[in-house]
Amino acid sequence: MSTVLYNNNFVSREACTVDMEDRGYQFGDGVYEVIRIYSGKMFTSQEHITRLFESAEKIKLDLPFTKEELTKNLSTLVEKNKLHTGTIYLQVTRGASARQHQFPLEGNPVFTAYTKEVPRPENQMNEGVAAIIAEDVRWLRCDIKSLNLLGNLLAKQEAYSQGSFEAILHRDGTVTEGSSSNAFIIKNNQLITHPATNLILNGITRRELLRLCPGIGLDVKEEAFTLDDLLSADEVFIASTTAEITPIVQIDGKDVADRKPGEWTKKLQSVLKASIQEQCGELVSVES
Amino acid sequence: MSTVLYNNNFVSREACTVDMEDRGYQFGDGVYEVIRIYSGKMFTSQEHITRLFESAEKIKLDLPFTKEELTKNLSTLVEKNKLHTGTIYLQVTRGASARQHQFPLEGNPVFTAYTKEVPRPENQMNEGVAAIIAEDVRWLRCDIKSLNLLGNLLAKQEAYSQGSFEAILHRDGTVTEGSSSNAFIIKNNQLITHPATNLILNGITRRELLRLCPGIGLDVKEEAFTLDDLLSADEVFIASTTAEITPIVQIDGKDVADRKPGEWTKKLQSVLKASIQEQCGELVSVES
Repeated sequence: MSTVLYNNNFVSREACTVDMEDRGYQFGDGVYEVIRIYSGKMFTSQEHITRLFESAEKIKLDLPFTKEELTKNLSTLVEKNKLHTGTIYLQVTRGASARQHQFPLEGNPVFTAYTKEVPRPENQMNEGVAAIIAEDVRWLRCDIKSLNLLGNLLAKQEAYSQGSFEAILHRDGTVTEGSSSNAFIIKNNQLITHPATNLILNGITRRELLRLCPGIGLDVKEEAFTLDDLLSADEVFIASTTAEITPIVQIDGKDVADRKPGEWTKKLQSVLKASIQEQCGELVSVES
Repeated sequence: MSTVLYNNNFVSREACTVDMEDRGYQFGDGVYEVIRIYSGKMFTSQEHITRLFESAEKIKLDLPFTKEELTKNLSTLVEKNKLHTGTIYLQVTRGASARQHQFPLEGNPVFTAYTKEVPRPENQMNEGVAAIIAEDVRWLRCDIKSLNLLGNLLAKQEAYSQGSFEAILHRDGTVTEGSSSNAFIIKNNQLITHPATNLILNGITRRELLRLCPGIGLDVKEEAFTLDDLLSADEVFIASTTAEITPIVQIDGKDVADRKPGEWTKKLQSVLKASIQEQCGELVSVES
């Protein structure tokens, strides 16, 4: 049975329960991260951990550990569970206290983390997936990776109910991001994606991609684009920690270009894979 | 030690923990209600329970009980805890399942409820409280009484950090509601409050008030009003299940009218109290 991390303690999965008055449970008062494990090693762990600290600061939550302590504990968790390819999910809430909206006077945060086997989604990366378009009804602080995800869930569920993988969100016709990913288009050999404002979560995979573009001669424009731009793009893809770079080949039932992953998309997948291998070592193909 | 309700079972408070992968804990994927208890009886319980079912339907969550079963269980909970004056907090989440945004195929909701002693806030109802103005950054489905409350918490905390009781929220200068209450102004002998759209939670106390206005000859206008209207109003108050009708006598440090609860506000408090007594019996004054 797997080991999970509860505050500073490694405990068995069954032993890890939380109080019914934990503010995470009553308010979604907390923040989280998902870190990819390849070949037993964490990928871009420092970027994720830094963002966790930034999210926590934005909701005025003091974390009871340092980045170094957290990194060490997460590495130990991966080892204990002998995880080869998968994810660590970690979250921290403001903890249990008598329910009231204002913060409790005494901080008592609750941290939980666990690992999961998750293969690289090779099929969907090779073939692409379908998406729908949905209205972005989320709050105006999407830059915080918080536990308030109901808007994201409802959009994702709508996509699944229509046989699609992702919902691409828009506010009044301007595309923001996917329900659990960032959204990108290629138009005239230029990569376009929403700038990292309060309206999107600045994904770690997004940042990694943007860093890699100059190396393959791909021009980047961080600028909001419209639904019309999306539907007339040469290539469309989403990026996230678990989906890596996944081509979108159909939107609301209409084919994107010739319904095949585009050339720039494939180049980006390839340089991202190289970057992963640089950090984590050789990737063994495991079918999803 | 108090008794809580966990699904259909009455259990001790300590025994009531939830799984770390409960969707309420990871996503805020659930809905809730707070019901007032006066003299050992629930006030407007059917309105609250009906709204719970409506909120659940809006997030496509099938509740595993009927309104009648829930009413009966809540009454029993109040009796078991011998609660005289206080609240029942109840929530239901989509339950535990391996984390993924789309809904699990098998529904497994988790219901929790508990009681708390909460006196009527007589001091603040008599004297009034201070409020601040804050930007409304919440999502566009505030009509759902969901567990995604981080936007509300941050506004309330900002109010408390400035020594105020409530934050009155606005979108681009249009007042929506309070962070945990509905907001009302009186201007030229007319009550004005935001209409019950997707931008506010249609409070049960709000509905009760609007129902009582004709009886005291107070004209009602359900129409959005501006920050200017708020700051130049004859009277300002908020309403909620726990705060009942609480006058706002100061906003961002500036006095409202003569910094005393207004005449219409006091009349409304009086008819609300009469309505409570009609349902629950004589109210005994307990100082908060």
